[in-house]
Amino acid sequence: MGNTFGHLFRITTFGESHGGGVGVVIDGCPPRLPLTAEEIQVELDRRRPGQSKITTPRKETDQCEILSGVFEGKTLGTPIAILVRNKDTRPQDYDEMAKTYRPSHADATYDAKYGFRNWQGGGRSSARETIGRVAAGAIAKKILREFGNIEIVGYVKRIKDLEAAIDPLTVTTEQVESNILRSPDGDFAERAIALIESIRDEGDSVGGVVECVVRNLPMGLGSPVFDRLEADLAKAVMSLPATKGFEVGSGFAGTLLKGSEHNDEFYTDEAGKLRTTTNRSGGVQGGISNGEPVVIRIAFKPTATIRKAQNTVDQTGEAKVLAGKGRHDPCVLPRAVPMVEAMVALVVCDHLLRDRAQCHTLEDLA
Amino acid sequence: MGNTFGHLFRITTFGESHGGGVGVVIDGCPPRLPLTAEEIQVELDRRRPGQSKITTPRKETDQCEILSGVFEGKTLGTPIAILVRNKDTRPQDYDEMAKTYRPSHADATYDAKYGFRNWQGGGRSSARETIGRVAAGAIAKKILREFGNIEIVGYVKRIKDLEAAIDPLTVTTEQVESNILRSPDGDFAERAIALIESIRDEGDSVGGVVECVVRNLPMGLGSPVFDRLEADLAKAVMSLPATKGFEVGSGFAGTLLKGSEHNDEFYTDEAGKLRTTTNRSGGVQGGISNGEPVVIRIAFKPTATIRKAQNTVDQTGEAKVLAGKGRHDPCVLPRAVPMVEAMVALVVCDHLLRDRAQCHTLEDLA
Amino acid sequence: MGNTFGHLFRITTFGESHGGGVGVVIDGCPPRLPLTAEEIQVELDRRRPGQSKITTPRKETDQCEILSGVFEGKTLGTPIAILVRNKDTRPQDYDEMAKTYRPSHADATYDAKYGFRNWQGGGRSSARETIGRVAAGAIAKKILREFGNIEIVGYVKRIKDLEAAIDPLTVTTEQVESNILRSPDGDFAERAIALIESIRDEGDSVGGVVECVVRNLPMGLGSPVFDRLEADLAKAVMSLPATKGFEVGSGFAGTLLKGSEHNDEFYTDEAGKLRTTTNRSGGVQGGISNGEPVVIRIAFKPTATIRKAQNTVDQTGEAKVLAGKGRHDPCVLPRAVPMVEAMVALVVCDHLLRDRAQCHTLEDLA
Amino acid sequence: MGNTFGHLFRITTFGESHGGGVGVVIDGCPPRLPLTAEEIQVELDRRRPGQSKITTPRKETDQCEILSGVFEGKTLGTPIAILVRNKDTRPQDYDEMAKTYRPSHADATYDAKYGFRNWQGGGRSSARETIGRVAAGAIAKKILREFGNIEIVGYVKRIKDLEAAIDPLTVTTEQVESNILRSPDGDFAERAIALIESIRDEGDSVGGVVECVVRNLPMGLGSPVFDRLEADLAKAVMSLPATKGFEVGSGFAGTLLKGSEHNDEFYTDEAGKLRTTTNRSGGVQGGISNGEPVVIRIAFKPTATIRKAQNTVDQTGEAKVLAGKGRHDPCVLPRAVPMVEAMVALVVCDHLLRDRAQCHTLEDLA
Repeated sequence: MGNTFGHLFRITTFGESHGGGVGVVIDGCPPRLPLTAEEIQVELDRRRPGQSKITTPRKETDQCEILSGVFEGKTLGTPIAILVRNKDTRPQDYDEMAKTYRPSHADATYDAKYGFRNWQGGGRSSARETIGRVAAGAIAKKILREFGNIEIVGYVKRIKDLEAAIDPLTVTTEQVESNILRSPDGDFAERAIALIESIRDEGDSVGGVVECVVRNLPMGLGSPVFDRLEADLAKAVMSLPATKGFEVGSGFAGTLLKGSEHNDEFYTDEAGKLRTTTNRSGGVQGGISNGEPVVIRIAFKPTATIRKAQNTVDQTGEAKVLAGKGRHDPCVLPRAVPMVEAMVALVVCDHLLRDRAQCHTLEDLA
Repeated sequence: MGNTFGHLFRITTFGESHGGGVGVVIDGCPPRLPLTAEEIQVELDRRRPGQSKITTPRKETDQCEILSGVFEGKTLGTPIAILVRNKDTRPQDYDEMAKTYRPSHADATYDAKYGFRNWQGGGRSSARETIGRVAAGAIAKKILREFGNIEIVGYVKRIKDLEAAIDPLTVTTEQVESNILRSPDGDFAERAIALIESIRDEGDSVGGVVECVVRNLPMGLGSPVFDRLEADLAKAVMSLPATKGFEVGSGFAGTLLKGSEHNDEFYTDEAGKLRTTTNRSGGVQGGISNGEPVVIRIAFKPTATIRKAQNTVDQTGEAKVLAGKGRHDPCVLPRAVPMVEAMVALVVCDHLLRDRAQCHTLEDLA
Repeated sequence: MGNTFGHLFRITTFGESHGGGVGVVIDGCPPRLPLTAEEIQVELDRRRPGQSKITTPRKETDQCEILSGVFEGKTLGTPIAILVRNKDTRPQDYDEMAKTYRPSHADATYDAKYGFRNWQGGGRSSARETIGRVAAGAIAKKILREFGNIEIVGYVKRIKDLEAAIDPLTVTTEQVESNILRSPDGDFAERAIALIESIRDEGDSVGGVVECVVRNLPMGLGSPVFDRLEADLAKAVMSLPATKGFEVGSGFAGTLLKGSEHNDEFYTDEAGKLRTTTNRSGGVQGGISNGEPVVIRIAFKPTATIRKAQNTVDQTGEAKVLAGKGRHDPCVLPRAVPMVEAMVALVVCDHLLRDRAQCHTLEDLA
Repeated sequence: MGNTFGHLFRITTFGESHGGGVGVVIDGCPPRLPLTAEEIQVELDRRRPGQSKITTPRKETDQCEILSGVFEGKTLGTPIAILVRNKDTRPQDYDEMAKTYRPSHADATYDAKYGFRNWQGGGRSSARETIGRVAAGAIAKKILREFGNIEIVGYVKRIKDLEAAIDPLTVTTEQVESNILRSPDGDFAERAIALIESIRDEGDSVGGVVECVVRNLPMGLGSPVFDRLEADLAKAVMSLPATKGFEVGSGFAGTLLKGSEHNDEFYTDEAGKLRTTTNRSGGVQGGISNGEPVVIRIAFKPTATIRKAQNTVDQTGEAKVLAGKGRHDPCVLPRAVPMVEAMVALVVCDHLLRDRAQCHTLEDLA
């Protein structure tokens, strides 16, 4: 259980880091949507290892194949299955991987839960699992664009204690893709990249914050009471590996304000549209989108696998010293950006379909 | 949609702040659990308005009735329906409530989504809806205690910029209930209560942070990949009204550390149990509980309803000035503590049942 | 678990035959639908005991109260909770009911599953539980009428070996309600009523078949592959008490035909609409409605509670002789008609919303 | 939507008859279950075309590959993805298949729903989709055997008007597999095979009834009220292609009996076990298994694709005459047997896990 996400636009991912492959089945996709493997590959390429000097140097091309659900270049309305094969390289340190628990990894908890695990790489807990999410997110993004030019843009907002200045109202994907950090504040990016390289060279790793904005969202998406838009977004991104925190709008900083300072006053704009003068709500009020940009932030911890030696134990409980020997990301954030965007797109797309069903089927009722 | 939560231990809440009542139906409760309305009432009393000088002075007794699912003092295994009647007091300012949008409330978004809303009080977006959650949470808590003395303790960690010093490893419910703030750091509580009263007297409001700990949790709860324990906790608490942020373990502060500083090293304790020397993971690794205390924090914004005048618009888009005239909480946090505990209990109980089903049905397999 | 039905138009029922009451929570109802308790009561009155000489003489008025989800006579889009109070009459034969298992009832299986049961009447397995379904079905029926004049008409097709001649293409609810059997074939109804009375006077009971038709259904409802329209209909009606079989279209008799005799040939009618010359498919092809009337039949066994003495055992396994002493339906079919219609309405309404969401959100795609 | 089945043991199938392949993702499988592709292949071979002279002569080997969820010969507890590649043979009659609606097929309804379809073969409505179900069912069967020797045996009970005499209490899979009809009544099988061949030679097709028994089922599986065991079984098998009817226990014939004739009297057997003298209930009372064998019957219509010419229309509504030119099953029943068993196994396995979770987590409560 736990490998399915969404209510109407619903995805199920599968696969371990080693074995036949990883992938996703997407159920509930609207029919007749033009779709090619190339479009999906664009997003997978943003996620894949080896894309720059600040990601892991492992080379994985992660080529996707659409197994079903698309015919003559259009979605059929039936499940879209997408498969990316694993390159089944033998892990280097068989005994160590199989027996010793890496600190702050899922080795020990998987063993405790299942009595057993695929010790070749991360198994199911590998970030490789997110390939299925990113592939599905590519389709969700396209639906949102087709429906009403709904845009989702994520970017690196902070690396350790260095913070970028980026305007969520105007930032574009083109700008995000303009540097390898995925953070369109050039000065910040330069310093952050240097910091990542320096800490990588120490054999250590670093974390940070991704910010993501949804623009052009219509009012009315999200459902009281459990499936509030921000609750579903929180679950979506907190299900990504290495996440430790979530904020919407003012977030934790909002707790430092008084009500009179925090409330977003309403006004009517020139076009007669209901707007708010500020957006501390982050685009959501009462769990439902209010037409302002939805802005969220996600905390990613420093990568758990590091070259520095650490104390740990093996399966028998005996003390061991472990140092990561593989090629790992010194910082997950550049590759986390497309993952965050994908999860956000899945939530928004699902809520779009849900809203259409409940609130637009009997349109004419006064 | 959106009013059901949980997969095996599953609740559905209903009700608006005005109308026949609010309540909950709990499906999937284990049979033969001793249960009385009085036990549920204890938790509802922690949530109810009018409980102290720093909550709204509205008097609502919120007496619950168990409509079904309990017989001769024990659960039947059938749905437990719990009802709390509304006191149907007419709202004071009929026209204003019906037509003018309160800033940072759900009035406008409900109108946009449903073309219509119950303008008497908060309707479905009222915190009164959480009665059903707290009632269900009381049952979940009892199951967790019966199963393995699993404890859930929430408390106020911060009010505006004042922060409490409380040890999540040892704090007890008795301590939490020892003051009206629900924060067992006496010095902090005194200063925070004074702050709340002072800001209330200005006609304003204040927010803060609730921390919640789960202790005695067995290893192995939580499911990769979407239903990670922390992802479900995030959704659970972010579905509470007025929440703006969520953290597990090190949270946002964890992003300031290097990997070598953040990782939790494993060791074997005297009892032969796998433990970690630190708990930056917050009791969860790879989405699955690791046996350490689960620690989360939730940001609550300052109450949206304030006495101070604010600019807004009415349904026609015309500019209005609005000042809250009712009796409102100057700070939601003391009453939010039992809500957070309830949502956490629902998540943990659901994952407990899920884990039993998948991982303990075929116990003997090597 | 198991007390929730539907994916988008989703209901959860609660309640035992004795205790506080029975009811339903309906989630996902479109907003702004005009709705009164009186409309729901009309359907409940078709279901209630004591309505005629061939049902149980127990008098239960089953008055419903709408607790939430309706405001100023219209649905809010929030959960609609409906409650019918139980009249808590003490059962007549306390010890016998508590300890001895009625043959072909759920007493023994509930005890086995839950280690415990509400022995006052049928508890959760009582047909009284269907009150919630019928109430929810009344709303689903109204949505279907509003959406596109979709009609659902059920009627008694057979009592024991007596069979009615009724045309599913033209039969109306008014005709069905014209006699106490709910079977608008006057000659058949007269003979069947006499048969029921005669068998009742023997202290015995009788079963039969309900047929139900859905007309004006648009093409395209139903989802491959598990949620085929006929599969969801089968589950829906087979979840009613006392059901033993289900057929769609040609049913079991269809297995006696050759393919060339069974296939429904297509033609284009005068209005240019795609039609079939026959309807052995029963309005569904490949799990999806084809625009022809959907016709299903449901087998109801003879009522299990009879006055005749029967052999059984008590909870300790000791042999006992039991004879029903209460006032029971000699034949459930007249009261089963509104139950079947309700379940069919729930399925069709759910699939209508699902189809709108998936297949009509991106209408313009070629 | 609609491509996922089950609550805890949950499967999602994907794939069209043409394209990359068909398969299934199984979520919720208990960990540490020994599992090989060969075991799954055994069931797939029972389902595959070309297995005997009374099935389609199309040769499809349907070799399965386990993509994930199994490691070192045991299940990991993570999703098990299974893929069977399609042999992408071009359909023979491109234009005809693309444009003309085959009578009693899903061509027209898919076009109506999705505005589009994969016209190469049956697309998603092809019986080829059931490969995923049969593969998942093989795993469910194994879990049931491991848990408590729960056996599921299906067989052909009737072909057109010829009926087999088979005792559900004793029939074995070995007996079922002893002839190509899958019906261990040798005399019947001989006559039925001759009938099928004769009707096939006419260019026509034939239907019948599959019976399936579940033995050694513990008491207590199934959930009131919607997820009654028989309701979930009904949905499960009615979601198979070509089904028109479902019966449990006495079925439609049970409606001809009086209550005193239909009720199953209880007794205590020599082992002290609660039993019934008869089994008209079909192993289920109140929706919950009572420990007697569960017996169901499913009506399969004659295969829709026949060589005989039939009237139909094309997509433009123009009248056409169509005769099946491919190689088709003259009778689906021999290949339907493993499909029925698979669906039954999925339902029983899901309910087993659900029962363990709800009713056995707090075992000790009095």
